[in-house]
Amino acid sequence: MRVPLDGLPERVTIYEVGPRDGLQNESTAVPVAVKAEFVRRLAAAGLRVIETTSLVRPDLVPQLADAEELLAALPREPGRPVLVPNLRGLDRALACGVTEIAIFASATETFARRNLNRTVDESLDMFAPVVERARAEGLWVRGYLSMVCGDPWEGDVPIEQVVAVARRLVDLGCSELSLGDTIGVGTPGQVTALIGAAVAAGIEVERIAVHFHDTYGQALANSLAALRAGVTTVDASAGGLGGCPFARSATGNLATEDLVWMLDGLGVETGVDLTALVETSVWLAGKLGRPSPSRVVRALAKERDR
Amino acid sequence: MRVPLDGLPERVTIYEVGPRDGLQNESTAVPVAVKAEFVRRLAAAGLRVIETTSLVRPDLVPQLADAEELLAALPREPGRPVLVPNLRGLDRALACGVTEIAIFASATETFARRNLNRTVDESLDMFAPVVERARAEGLWVRGYLSMVCGDPWEGDVPIEQVVAVARRLVDLGCSELSLGDTIGVGTPGQVTALIGAAVAAGIEVERIAVHFHDTYGQALANSLAALRAGVTTVDASAGGLGGCPFARSATGNLATEDLVWMLDGLGVETGVDLTALVETSVWLAGKLGRPSPSRVVRALAKERDR
Repeated sequence: MRVPLDGLPERVTIYEVGPRDGLQNESTAVPVAVKAEFVRRLAAAGLRVIETTSLVRPDLVPQLADAEELLAALPREPGRPVLVPNLRGLDRALACGVTEIAIFASATETFARRNLNRTVDESLDMFAPVVERARAEGLWVRGYLSMVCGDPWEGDVPIEQVVAVARRLVDLGCSELSLGDTIGVGTPGQVTALIGAAVAAGIEVERIAVHFHDTYGQALANSLAALRAGVTTVDASAGGLGGCPFARSATGNLATEDLVWMLDGLGVETGVDLTALVETSVWLAGKLGRPSPSRVVRALAKERDR
Repeated sequence: MRVPLDGLPERVTIYEVGPRDGLQNESTAVPVAVKAEFVRRLAAAGLRVIETTSLVRPDLVPQLADAEELLAALPREPGRPVLVPNLRGLDRALACGVTEIAIFASATETFARRNLNRTVDESLDMFAPVVERARAEGLWVRGYLSMVCGDPWEGDVPIEQVVAVARRLVDLGCSELSLGDTIGVGTPGQVTALIGAAVAAGIEVERIAVHFHDTYGQALANSLAALRAGVTTVDASAGGLGGCPFARSATGNLATEDLVWMLDGLGVETGVDLTALVETSVWLAGKLGRPSPSRVVRALAKERDR
């Protein structure tokens, strides 16, 4: 039954992270042809933005070592951002004809050190020329900010600290900012306060995306809180693929299907055909050799097989 | 981090359904001593209301055939309701010294027929003398209403239909009304509208509890919507035990731990010690021979074993 809720947007952009954030954190090797088919099927299911891969060092993230091959197998279309860690990654992206990129920063010193081997300041210094050059080349740039609701080593992360780094990412030239609760500890009041503080710091809510993990089951409730706070872009991973390999106890991203179920019920337009998306996740789960962790995928697949 | 959210109650009563709704739907036989220990541990973890068992026909629900034995093993304390299906069950409850009971009605004709072998009208006629006699004996009575967001055979269930049956349960003399999305299909707008319609029909919001299933991952987001609509009692099942054996594709109840995580984060008082509760669910999962489906239980147990 479709019943709207006051204060929600009419339309939400789902930023699909399954092919990159999802497959990056799966232990099963996935052939490049399967990845390309995955992206094509996601697009056919109506997903308008699909982060396709990451141009990181192949020895560091072997799951995505086929990035160039994958990009060559897919047409260049709008809405296909690629993660780049540094200028070398940007060079590779430009050589592939990529027109949208994402960079990945940390709100905390410990995670910056562990993930990027730099302080937060040093990491922003590293990203500055990447964003500058990308913008000069006409590219759209997303800035991920991780550990925005808590850090496995530091515990609570003050909202002012998150907003300060967020502000600097926007000042560098990021068109979109994805606030990531990498370890999934946040709750709806914290999410609401964080978005309010970011907006109060001059970051337009239209630029803000949210990225939740379901480690403690909070991802969908937090997404709802973010939508009520004016956010219109939500990150999700088809079938709940992946997680964060660096964070303690991390489990999967918010499943795109669980998000679409809620948004469909709320009458919020996403453009996604849930049946086609579930078919895609069931198909991919077969390739990975294990069932999808998405509750909607499991329920609808069971329903279908009845 | 504790960050409140506007419009939420300061305090929420968690109505724990694990020993009854949970264990009723588990295939593993649980010895009565383990059930008694489960109830004691839940109480020690701070749960103030624990539905202990059901006085149904032992041949129909063999998992709860030890109801009298379990009640005899536990002290009579306030906050220990027992489900009774009919006058025979009420007699048994009174013989056990039970002071709080629950009855289980359906918002839809098909589920009333399948679960109770009666029309909705006939089921209410059956419950009327149960509630009347229970109230005359000084008992507190909860009325469950199932299929309030959808029915596996009928599909959408009109809000007016749900409210009409809810109103009749309150008119029979139920002190509390638990609105159950038995198959987990509802979304936050529908929940908000349903509670608003019940209140508009003269049912005080203080009497309304909500009961969500996580079949489509919506239980916590729906609970949040209910809290924002003024509800202060939320049903949950420790460790996410159980489901509804009669409903298609049903999976577990909302896990108490996932709810407590959210409420703790929101600074809403529940009286529950999350660590003690997780220990209890891990202990029971060991008895059942399978991991808990609660995300919080899994994450914290992993954390603890690290």
